[in-house]
Amino acid sequence: MANFTEADLPPNLTCRKNVDTLLRCPICFEFLSIAVMTKCSHNFCSLCIRKCMSYKLQCPVCNSPTTEQDLRNNRILDDLVTNFQTARQQLSKANFDSPPLSPKT
Amino acid sequence: MANFTEADLPPNLTCRKNVDTLLRCPICFEFLSIAVMTKCSHNFCSLCIRKCMSYKLQCPVCNSPTTEQDLRNNRILDDLVTNFQTARQQLSKANFDSPPLSPKT
Ligand SMILES: [Zn+2]
Ligand SMILES: [Zn+2]
Ligand SMILES: [Zn+2]
Ligand SMILES: [Zn+2]
Repeated sequence: MANFTEADLPPNLTCRKNVDTLLRCPICFEFLSIAVMTKCSHNFCSLCIRKCMSYKLQCPVCNSPTTEQDLRNNRILDDLVTNFQTARQQLSKANFDSPPLSPKT
Repeated sequence: MANFTEADLPPNLTCRKNVDTLLRCPICFEFLSIAVMTKCSHNFCSLCIRKCMSYKLQCPVCNSPTTEQDLRNNRILDDLVTNFQTARQQLSKANFDSPPLSPKT
């Protein structure tokens, strides 16, 4: 995965950074993978929260009691992650393509 | 609210159009306002789905049986809508600011 810094982003798109944060799992810090939502409205990768709940039956973000039966797929987040990653790749490609490159030595 | 067409968007950001669609309520077609999710993982404005369920206890998208008790706030979508709207406004402002304008007559 490409490593982005805020400097890579056009100034009018710093919101993009917030969206990046929102779409990450608070357990593994990767983009949500098979997003599930707890009753308390917090989202995690399906695997991350299930592993976590094998130790403690509470939400890792807000400590609300929670069970595996309470978990609900949040499919729109999977679609948003896909779209966001595609947009980011295209933006990165555009940034790479546009500046005049010095010839390879 | 500003009316955007696809032509307003930089070509590398057509994903933005998909995100726009994802973040809209399938009942009122506005951006989700106090997003709630059904058990079947479909999202609506809180008011829109409650009005709808006063007529029929099923999901307007997939017809799954659903009750008001099944509805769960999907707060991350409220945050995503805010961020998306801000990004769009800034993008639109940038598009307005950059081309040389003919003087007002
Ligand atoms: Zn995770
Ligand atoms: Zn929580
Ligand atoms: Zn609505
Ligand atoms: Zn449904």
